[in-house]
Amino acid sequence: MKVESLISRLEEIAPPGLAEEYDAGRIGLILKGSREVGRVAVALDPTPYAIRRAAEDGAGMLVTHHTLIWDPVSRISEELAHKLRLLLDNGLSLYTMHTNYDNAPGGVNDVLAGLIGLRSPEAFYGGRVGTVEEMSLRELACMASARLGCSVEYVGEESRMVRHVATVAGSGFRLALEHAKENRIDVVLSSELKHDVIRGRGEVALVSAPHYYTEAPAMRSLAERLNAIVPTVFIDDPPRIKTIKWDEIRERV
Amino acid sequence: MKVESLISRLEEIAPPGLAEEYDAGRIGLILKGSREVGRVAVALDPTPYAIRRAAEDGAGMLVTHHTLIWDPVSRISEELAHKLRLLLDNGLSLYTMHTNYDNAPGGVNDVLAGLIGLRSPEAFYGGRVGTVEEMSLRELACMASARLGCSVEYVGEESRMVRHVATVAGSGFRLALEHAKENRIDVVLSSELKHDVIRGRGEVALVSAPHYYTEAPAMRSLAERLNAIVPTVFIDDPPRIKTIKWDEIRERV
Amino acid sequence: MKVESLISRLEEIAPPGLAEEYDAGRIGLILKGSREVGRVAVALDPTPYAIRRAAEDGAGMLVTHHTLIWDPVSRISEELAHKLRLLLDNGLSLYTMHTNYDNAPGGVNDVLAGLIGLRSPEAFYGGRVGTVEEMSLRELACMASARLGCSVEYVGEESRMVRHVATVAGSGFRLALEHAKENRIDVVLSSELKHDVIRGRGEVALVSAPHYYTEAPAMRSLAERLNAIVPTVFIDDPPRIKTIKWDEIRERV
Amino acid sequence: MKVESLISRLEEIAPPGLAEEYDAGRIGLILKGSREVGRVAVALDPTPYAIRRAAEDGAGMLVTHHTLIWDPVSRISEELAHKLRLLLDNGLSLYTMHTNYDNAPGGVNDVLAGLIGLRSPEAFYGGRVGTVEEMSLRELACMASARLGCSVEYVGEESRMVRHVATVAGSGFRLALEHAKENRIDVVLSSELKHDVIRGRGEVALVSAPHYYTEAPAMRSLAERLNAIVPTVFIDDPPRIKTIKWDEIRERV
Amino acid sequence: MKVESLISRLEEIAPPGLAEEYDAGRIGLILKGSREVGRVAVALDPTPYAIRRAAEDGAGMLVTHHTLIWDPVSRISEELAHKLRLLLDNGLSLYTMHTNYDNAPGGVNDVLAGLIGLRSPEAFYGGRVGTVEEMSLRELACMASARLGCSVEYVGEESRMVRHVATVAGSGFRLALEHAKENRIDVVLSSELKHDVIRGRGEVALVSAPHYYTEAPAMRSLAERLNAIVPTVFIDDPPRIKTIKWDEIRERV
Amino acid sequence: MKVESLISRLEEIAPPGLAEEYDAGRIGLILKGSREVGRVAVALDPTPYAIRRAAEDGAGMLVTHHTLIWDPVSRISEELAHKLRLLLDNGLSLYTMHTNYDNAPGGVNDVLAGLIGLRSPEAFYGGRVGTVEEMSLRELACMASARLGCSVEYVGEESRMVRHVATVAGSGFRLALEHAKENRIDVVLSSELKHDVIRGRGEVALVSAPHYYTEAPAMRSLAERLNAIVPTVFIDDPPRIKTIKWDEIRERV
Repeated sequence: MKVESLISRLEEIAPPGLAEEYDAGRIGLILKGSREVGRVAVALDPTPYAIRRAAEDGAGMLVTHHTLIWDPVSRISEELAHKLRLLLDNGLSLYTMHTNYDNAPGGVNDVLAGLIGLRSPEAFYGGRVGTVEEMSLRELACMASARLGCSVEYVGEESRMVRHVATVAGSGFRLALEHAKENRIDVVLSSELKHDVIRGRGEVALVSAPHYYTEAPAMRSLAERLNAIVPTVFIDDPPRIKTIKWDEIRERV
Repeated sequence: MKVESLISRLEEIAPPGLAEEYDAGRIGLILKGSREVGRVAVALDPTPYAIRRAAEDGAGMLVTHHTLIWDPVSRISEELAHKLRLLLDNGLSLYTMHTNYDNAPGGVNDVLAGLIGLRSPEAFYGGRVGTVEEMSLRELACMASARLGCSVEYVGEESRMVRHVATVAGSGFRLALEHAKENRIDVVLSSELKHDVIRGRGEVALVSAPHYYTEAPAMRSLAERLNAIVPTVFIDDPPRIKTIKWDEIRERV
Repeated sequence: MKVESLISRLEEIAPPGLAEEYDAGRIGLILKGSREVGRVAVALDPTPYAIRRAAEDGAGMLVTHHTLIWDPVSRISEELAHKLRLLLDNGLSLYTMHTNYDNAPGGVNDVLAGLIGLRSPEAFYGGRVGTVEEMSLRELACMASARLGCSVEYVGEESRMVRHVATVAGSGFRLALEHAKENRIDVVLSSELKHDVIRGRGEVALVSAPHYYTEAPAMRSLAERLNAIVPTVFIDDPPRIKTIKWDEIRERV
Repeated sequence: MKVESLISRLEEIAPPGLAEEYDAGRIGLILKGSREVGRVAVALDPTPYAIRRAAEDGAGMLVTHHTLIWDPVSRISEELAHKLRLLLDNGLSLYTMHTNYDNAPGGVNDVLAGLIGLRSPEAFYGGRVGTVEEMSLRELACMASARLGCSVEYVGEESRMVRHVATVAGSGFRLALEHAKENRIDVVLSSELKHDVIRGRGEVALVSAPHYYTEAPAMRSLAERLNAIVPTVFIDDPPRIKTIKWDEIRERV
Repeated sequence: MKVESLISRLEEIAPPGLAEEYDAGRIGLILKGSREVGRVAVALDPTPYAIRRAAEDGAGMLVTHHTLIWDPVSRISEELAHKLRLLLDNGLSLYTMHTNYDNAPGGVNDVLAGLIGLRSPEAFYGGRVGTVEEMSLRELACMASARLGCSVEYVGEESRMVRHVATVAGSGFRLALEHAKENRIDVVLSSELKHDVIRGRGEVALVSAPHYYTEAPAMRSLAERLNAIVPTVFIDDPPRIKTIKWDEIRERV
Repeated sequence: MKVESLISRLEEIAPPGLAEEYDAGRIGLILKGSREVGRVAVALDPTPYAIRRAAEDGAGMLVTHHTLIWDPVSRISEELAHKLRLLLDNGLSLYTMHTNYDNAPGGVNDVLAGLIGLRSPEAFYGGRVGTVEEMSLRELACMASARLGCSVEYVGEESRMVRHVATVAGSGFRLALEHAKENRIDVVLSSELKHDVIRGRGEVALVSAPHYYTEAPAMRSLAERLNAIVPTVFIDDPPRIKTIKWDEIRERV
């Protein structure tokens, strides 16, 4: 199909007008390759691995959540040159949907809220807020781990019963926390938990999953939706974070 | 002793002129209590727990690394009011040394580099750089866990041999990484590892410990140094982050 | 009554949406004390005297026109600490209504315009404009002195007949003057008359009363209105400005 | 003499390099008239009266403290057009020395400090600080009135004995007050006393004289110095501020 | 007629609300002369020649496209003083219509588009876009030269056939070019062609005429329209740019 | 030779420290290709033609005066993608020297001043100033045409005798003119003459050559200097600006 027709579909799914202001110039068609697209690849980030896999798969376009160039450049670094060459030589277009897909119906935050099982989800400062069946904080953390498929951290009294939960895909603790306090929300679930957020949490419990696992499910979902109009594959490329556990080290020290 | 004499000593240890520019107005005497100080308490953060403990201990001054008010305020929130009342009613002074103590000789970064065992440490973009005896990345991560007393995460090939290491107390990956690439450094050790940093790490391995554990040792060391001139106690108040491990959850799913 | 109910009433009197943009963060509930308020105190400024008097009077809230912290702070000065302790130890809430009360119907500018006897008053660049019965500038100045209860200064030909008058509570000469010229207004009455305003007055006469006396009447009026729902007292605390008169000194020189 | 030679002399008296940064573009030769200057006129402000008097006196240059155009213009208002025409048609140059003359040795602040009789005067945040023979605040205010030739206002306990005094010509209370507190200064004398300054004065007494009378003496002194090289006249043009005294009105009310 | 009535007519022709934001303070009545205007002069720029001619012609107002003071001033340069004196001594008002007249119906861009013969002209990024009968680029350039009465330069294949043309009076290549690319426009005609614009033109041909000749026709047209209500003269004052042709020099070298 | 060695030589010729502040991030190695460079190409602009010619010539680096990306980008336009692919697929490095080479000894401005034959040239606001043997303005314009090899335009009395000349490579009229007036310079020679510069020229004559011809000679000179250490070719790629002469059109109209 024509690149233009595919873009029309992508803009229906994630209307550019829904993007936050700071995303100006960072979403949409970042690089234009061949005019005809027979296959599409979807990934969270335009990593060399994802680009190479997309090319091997015969894709004409790679759709990602994070863009290729965050801070505008006037030089081409070696890493960027490497990715650009992979894209250019394979005639791959790169299309990015970021906060517009975060905010879109059926987008990143809706998929995350759905995984956690939020009932009556509503928009809430970069994420969603809703209720879960009353359970302890620890039970909520375990459920999040099981549903997202990753380890999670949490801060708060583990036996405290919780019900009102805000979920924010990506790095959203600071903004959501500020408003969670005013709105008597029990828990904020997001990623990239920082020390000052923990210190300023007041009564709000915090559950943190790695950034990748809060957003990748929505890209997998996007691949399924696109597959209805053009063959589309999701490329999974999680960061490989390993952990040394203090419990195990302590014994040895 | 007089507050003024104590401050003179604190300024010798962490000269205000060493602070980063953005710390203007955020270091030094944040709140002035009694003029005479018979005992001193030291903590990483001015948490309600640390203030209460300092008061119970009869301290006239609490010295912290993080300040009471980061973003300047024109209203007093309930949390701030709570801390202020604890301080005011106990006649406690609050004194903050932040990036000046990070940068000072014998300060936060020197203590961290010392714990990791960096040889020939030098200043390096908010932290220190030096060498360790050649070991695998995994061995380095285990050593960091053992020395800091906490779990650590790492990204990179675990068997890769490393020798040139940069350590940055607090949240320092982004800046240090940028320069680590140019300087052929093998590993950056810091805290609050973010997704975009992992994606942009290139060849550099990353080791991340919780913020608290990279900085608290230097506050303990400060308490020991002050104890030579006035009775001083270190108040340990780590954030209680709990982990649900995917390895254990996976089996249950 | 509950703090929340009282605030609802205060917001009816001075809707926050009427505030000038620069007042963002400087109006409303600045500090929250006890949840129940049995008595209220009103004053122009949160001076130590006004806070102490409010506490002695058993008030649960002090309502002022000027706020506690104009320029946002990241340290607590001794003067601020002194006021905060008085407020905190007495469980006093502090609530500020500034430009929202200036602009509100029945607010600061309406009370001032009423005292001067402006007919058909309309909003005018931070104040009100209207007409008075034709009189000489000197007669207007005398009337202002009598009605506000303070000395006043004026600039302009004393015998000139005036009729169109703009009154601006607080420090409002510069903005009002600029537009008074275009609108053929005879006199601007405000406070804190500066040299450059006098030099740039063109044909417009100027009458200046001390800042306090142009605004305090509206706080007294507020106390009367609140008294209908909760016992309320107005605390009068004018600055004590004394004058050495050149006429008397000249003879001695 | 040549305009250029006269300017050289003016720059010796008030070196442009001593001006505050905000005066950039507002000092020096503001308008160039005839190349030859046989007589000079000096005034505090370029009022129509001062320009007309300078022209009648046959002056080729008018030297003022305050400039003709404070906020840069892209239109010519009627008032500015009026002054410009007076200047242009009389071939008058206009030269301004503002904060450079405030700060210069023998300049505005030195003349004011000399009139008040400060001993060992030193530079102090836009003014001078020094000592006077110990006297009561009221006595200091009376002396200021007698020496400056105008009414003065003061705030503080009239019988309090004072010795350390800061004097700032023009409108200098806010900046000087801030530092007066730290430096245990008894009194700040300046002009254009504002309500918030009174409220924030702490222990510092304040004496306020009209702006004109704190600066005009230095322009008279300048005229005398210039007269040594070219016939120079000082044009006195005080603002005519009249006062209605509450003491007298009160009886009538 | 009264200045005010004349201004009403000028505002009908070029409504101030049509001006670009950066023109704030730069359009309208820049200097007010006599209240009665018996004759009007129109010119592109307020040059000394145009002002003198307007005065000789007995005009009470000079209407120009470019203003007297572009960058706001706080000093009066000799050149500005010269023009101001000519205006002031002749009681001439100066009125400027700039981007409001560019954008107005029948204004600068409409007159230019009319001269070039654009069909179905529409607003286009500071100019107009429309079609011409298909002709070669060279033919278009020749036609522009003939209609504007000046030499023109062009860049592009001379025999290429063109039809969609954007015309922008004054200096408008950069903005128009950016959008011409997206809109498959064949040619942009404007003035002040810069090297970087040529380098970034892509497929778009460029025709450049001197700034004066793209705008002066609209001022001539304005004079004709005003003449219907008050005697009005257009003052033609083109810059005298001379050319040394390489073709002729080459032979001599 | 190694890219690094070549860069060392380029930095000797045009030290980065000489660049204007706005060139930060726009000079130096913009894109890194092969590590070994056997041949070098030099051009004014990185046009597709110049890149292709450099590649055909077997160059490993293209050195230009103007950079590839002026305004930093977060997307890759089709034109940029086209150039990047040409560079990447040919392993070409791109190195830019802009204002650093303008200002360097023997750099762009020195080469231009040398061509015009300035005697005792000195740095002058982005260019050079010096003297020529006295000649008429027209003679100077003819000489410039002959030496630069292009048509030139001039403004000013053609028979006026000139001697003090400022030359500024590239687009430098505005800044140089401002200072030429104060320094009694007869002529400014630069490129991209704009209408407002002509109107504000006062007594200063202006000579304008196309941007390309004022800077390309210095790139040719650079190629010759580099040739001493590595085979280097200069690629000439002037913009093809054609002119329709009014003199010839007029007759036909």
